[in-house]
Amino acid sequence: MKISSTVRRNMQVNGQGTATIFGERQHTWAQFGDRIARLAAGLSGLGLDSGDRVAVLSLNNDRYMESYFGVPWGGYVLVPINTRLAPPEIEFWLNDSGSTVLMVDEAFVEMVPKIQAHLETVKHVVFLGDGPVPKGMISFEGLLEGVSPSEAADTASDDLAMLYYTGGTTGRSKGVMLSQHNVLYDALLFAPTVGYRDHSVYLHAAPMFHIADGTCTFAIATAAGTSVIIPGFEPKAALTAIQDHKVSVTLWVPTMINMAMHYPGVEDFDLSSMVDMMYGASPMPEAVVRRAMEVMPHTRFHHAYGQTESAPILTMLAPDRHIPDTDTGKFGSCGQALLGVELKIVDEDDNEVPAGTVGELCARADNVMLGYWRQPEMTAFALRNGWLHTGDGARMDDEGFVYIVDRVKDMIISGGENVYSAEVEDAIYQHAAVAECAVIGIPHDKWGEQVHAIVRLHDAQQGDKSVGEQAIVDHCHSLIAAFKCPRSVEFSTAPLPLSGAGKILKTELRKPFWADQEKAVH
Amino acid sequence: MKISSTVRRNMQVNGQGTATIFGERQHTWAQFGDRIARLAAGLSGLGLDSGDRVAVLSLNNDRYMESYFGVPWGGYVLVPINTRLAPPEIEFWLNDSGSTVLMVDEAFVEMVPKIQAHLETVKHVVFLGDGPVPKGMISFEGLLEGVSPSEAADTASDDLAMLYYTGGTTGRSKGVMLSQHNVLYDALLFAPTVGYRDHSVYLHAAPMFHIADGTCTFAIATAAGTSVIIPGFEPKAALTAIQDHKVSVTLWVPTMINMAMHYPGVEDFDLSSMVDMMYGASPMPEAVVRRAMEVMPHTRFHHAYGQTESAPILTMLAPDRHIPDTDTGKFGSCGQALLGVELKIVDEDDNEVPAGTVGELCARADNVMLGYWRQPEMTAFALRNGWLHTGDGARMDDEGFVYIVDRVKDMIISGGENVYSAEVEDAIYQHAAVAECAVIGIPHDKWGEQVHAIVRLHDAQQGDKSVGEQAIVDHCHSLIAAFKCPRSVEFSTAPLPLSGAGKILKTELRKPFWADQEKAVH
Repeated sequence: MKISSTVRRNMQVNGQGTATIFGERQHTWAQFGDRIARLAAGLSGLGLDSGDRVAVLSLNNDRYMESYFGVPWGGYVLVPINTRLAPPEIEFWLNDSGSTVLMVDEAFVEMVPKIQAHLETVKHVVFLGDGPVPKGMISFEGLLEGVSPSEAADTASDDLAMLYYTGGTTGRSKGVMLSQHNVLYDALLFAPTVGYRDHSVYLHAAPMFHIADGTCTFAIATAAGTSVIIPGFEPKAALTAIQDHKVSVTLWVPTMINMAMHYPGVEDFDLSSMVDMMYGASPMPEAVVRRAMEVMPHTRFHHAYGQTESAPILTMLAPDRHIPDTDTGKFGSCGQALLGVELKIVDEDDNEVPAGTVGELCARADNVMLGYWRQPEMTAFALRNGWLHTGDGARMDDEGFVYIVDRVKDMIISGGENVYSAEVEDAIYQHAAVAECAVIGIPHDKWGEQVHAIVRLHDAQQGDKSVGEQAIVDHCHSLIAAFKCPRSVEFSTAPLPLSGAGKILKTELRKPFWADQEKAVH
Repeated sequence: MKISSTVRRNMQVNGQGTATIFGERQHTWAQFGDRIARLAAGLSGLGLDSGDRVAVLSLNNDRYMESYFGVPWGGYVLVPINTRLAPPEIEFWLNDSGSTVLMVDEAFVEMVPKIQAHLETVKHVVFLGDGPVPKGMISFEGLLEGVSPSEAADTASDDLAMLYYTGGTTGRSKGVMLSQHNVLYDALLFAPTVGYRDHSVYLHAAPMFHIADGTCTFAIATAAGTSVIIPGFEPKAALTAIQDHKVSVTLWVPTMINMAMHYPGVEDFDLSSMVDMMYGASPMPEAVVRRAMEVMPHTRFHHAYGQTESAPILTMLAPDRHIPDTDTGKFGSCGQALLGVELKIVDEDDNEVPAGTVGELCARADNVMLGYWRQPEMTAFALRNGWLHTGDGARMDDEGFVYIVDRVKDMIISGGENVYSAEVEDAIYQHAAVAECAVIGIPHDKWGEQVHAIVRLHDAQQGDKSVGEQAIVDHCHSLIAAFKCPRSVEFSTAPLPLSGAGKILKTELRKPFWADQEKAVH
């Protein structure tokens, strides 16, 4: 499968259909195909060779989506950069990937001069925003103007197309190498089943630099459907976009759904066009999905689980399992192996464990990465014995439903017992006053680690003395084993820190506690 | 993608679900997986090496389906044999493919001793029928009994898995080499969209030796659904199977639909379970599909077009185009490029032609064959410039809808079977009295087309009453399969009309027969 083939097919079967909508700007698939072939020609004119890396540091926009297709059309490799990184981290990603082109929008124009001195390989900075082109930068539209559309590069489907960096919570960030086949195959495994069609309208509200939205970009494109793009997730803008453009499908992370479903006046928006909502990238508290099902009773919810290394989706919990009233006990699962994906759970010696036993989840499928960029040893370790080792602790029931118990590294070991933070968080979220929470391990002289909760209450409950530490702990005791209950609870009035992908940054929360400790990896 | 992965996933996600139903015999996916791993072990015990060919000559049954998966599980190649061939043709397929194992059911037991002396490579004959095992044959169940299930062979997804033979327009049959990836990818391109799910029930009524049913075999398997298998198409048996097993999806050729929809008492069958009916493999007269939509008003119809060389589906006309009352003019089209498939129409110099112009339909996608078995020159020609040249004349409108205007120039489609006129002509020419002949398709109410021969005898035999219609037909029966033999023979005393290049002008010969028909192109 090739990315260029997808676009050419769309020009043929839905040429006059809308490909992208960004603000007032719209392009048909015929225009989209013309533009990406010009983008490839423009990049070639900058002297790029096949396989060269092109980085994008930008909020969501239609040119970002054009880069997703135009860069591989030219035989180059796209490197989407997390917009929440600090400058030294951005420098590292750009230098490590050896990117020769950096594309930025308005939001990052001011950062460029600050980091430029530290960039080892970037030769050209392309401005993909609107308005005047900043000095020293090349205009995106200018790149497209003076050239004829190029023929698609003669690439192989196994050629590297995307280099997504992962957070590197256990240390250094690393680039995940995904081929054209990896990303298109992943899209093909879920898009037709979820219901991506040529009349579908997908909302890009999750960040385009993240593979969760990235795979949906390929999904809506393989279906020849329409992409509505907003710069980033903001509840009112997202709800308005759904209403205005009759959005039918999207992928949000749980924190986005939580924010939108509690947005004042959410009931006044017409969300009836939303047929399919995918969610994933972090555990979904049951209370949040119940709330979403109340607000959007006509919507089918799909829980997707995966990781960048598998481009990314590995399992899906289908809509017919999202019915708490007739709960079959699968609601807390992230579903079954996606069609086309093989899964198993292994012990520390890489032997498959029986159903019900916790171990490391492993996967084998065509969406599994080529490897880590310039990290042959880490690649060999992650892909040992022919299986992707996800690093996620999980169990599988006898019907193949997978339950993620925790990131192996988010697991808390307290007094010799394994405590999975996700399970504790799920209990805390069931308290009506809780808006947001995170559970981490903090140092304890006797137990090694102690279960610690950080909680933010809903605005109305802020300062309510009846909802104190003891109330939260008592609430947990009514739901989970004593050894899992928090020993300490800390209240925050500020929102908890989020990663660019919308995940709570536990590394940040752990730092003050572990600053003096050896176990800094936590 | 690997065939073994599909089965392993099904054992995990739907192990207790029904995989196959054949008469009174049923197997779950857990049992199916166990049985195919034993079949692979049993074949290995016969001394087979990786890549060896295993041919099947049988009516439909559940063991045929097990062979579809067990043979590649062991790293071997399946060669499904057309059950309507004459013995010399079967010998050719077996020898050309170099098959070392031949599996037959009751229907072909008697043929084995007749052909065995001419078989150059077959070492073992396996009996996959029921009842006593014929002398000299190995019992299919016996192969499975004495062995432990084997691990799946360590094959690559691009390894050869299936060898389907097609009739050759230039005479000789050739083997189409399809990889594991080819066949699974094809299934993945249509199965989720058409609605193959784990609760789907597929009816194998079309012959399992043909790739039309073959791709649906992979489709229902990737979805972890259920296969109901009947020995072959017979209207009452097929309608009864739909009713009894609540069949939800199937693929029939138009003649099957025609026969079933006009079966006396068809209205008395409960066909309400049938959600999706695919049809293809020959042109569908509009009256037939209208009749089918009357009898099965709740069914969604999908018109599939393709060829063995593309494993096989290239286009699909979706259900929303099957509404004659609100006809959008697309009803006579075979639809648009399947998601994941690129199509173009080219002139004789391989240049793409504008919309509306007739040329040769070409395709590029992951379901395109590896090539023709041991025919590197024919392979290079069929796949020249990186595209599969279908040999089908077609035009495409400006929305990408494909209209086949002339099948491979001289091919006749009679009752869903492809008859290559050159092959029939070859047989007729072997009659000593024949000076010249041409074989064409003429309209037939039931079969779509009928094989018709126009013959000019040598001057000395002109008027010889011993060389009449029956003599020519009898002569053909001694050389080729019954379905290929002419149903009518016309004698001409004048030379047949020739083109400037000296080729017989079949278009001229067809004209009087098709003058009153819509499909004048034939």
